[in-house]
Amino acid sequence: MRTTDGVLAANRRYYEAFEAKDLDAMSDLWERSDRAICTHPGWATLEGWGPVAASFFALFQGGQQIQFVLTRERAIQVGDTAWVSLDENLLGDQGGVTVATINIFVRGSGPDGWQMVCHHGSVVQAGRHAGP
Amino acid sequence: MRTTDGVLAANRRYYEAFEAKDLDAMSDLWERSDRAICTHPGWATLEGWGPVAASFFALFQGGQQIQFVLTRERAIQVGDTAWVSLDENLLGDQGGVTVATINIFVRGSGPDGWQMVCHHGSVVQAGRHAGP
Repeated sequence: MRTTDGVLAANRRYYEAFEAKDLDAMSDLWERSDRAICTHPGWATLEGWGPVAASFFALFQGGQQIQFVLTRERAIQVGDTAWVSLDENLLGDQGGVTVATINIFVRGSGPDGWQMVCHHGSVVQAGRHAGP
Repeated sequence: MRTTDGVLAANRRYYEAFEAKDLDAMSDLWERSDRAICTHPGWATLEGWGPVAASFFALFQGGQQIQFVLTRERAIQVGDTAWVSLDENLLGDQGGVTVATINIFVRGSGPDGWQMVCHHGSVVQAGRHAGP
């Protein structure tokens, strides 16, 4: 098992919880503290678990079913912190879009031993994609 | 001195280097390694110091003078890693824009004892700004 397997598993849990619109699973994954921050594509940064949880609640109420295909996943671990950079390729009702993303985790009691403290995604504009 | 003063100082160096179009200062600040990653607003994520440096070189060649006003700066430190979330308020030739940003640093030999390993900024869309 690679050192970063745990954090990559935690990272995948985020997308499973999102696809399943499972607020409990999302709540288990996140560090429910003031330092939790989340920047959805085009949004201002939400600070603290309250506003972050409320945003997922609102997003999960929406009718649209989102499916993520994850590419370019890369995990870096330094002590009790790790971050995963990846592309979220979203397959939705309105066609595909790529969201460049960074997720930060700290060691904790969450599933896989890691808890999410930061999610930041931003849509990659046409013509700004990386090579093949 | 608060524990996070060093990383906040390192964070400000990024913007000073950007405003001064100083590639040497940017190079001193960043960890010049494969794990350096950078996502400029709307861009795909650049991986490794080579592509990251090339992007700053290209941006600095541009004629536009950018001035940053930083708000909502918040630093979190966990061991030898720290991250700073903030809003970059850009005052440019084409009016103002707010860029929600996360910067990640690791302890190192850079100025202020920290080196940048990740920068990710995304434009906050109208109507998505945080309260007052």
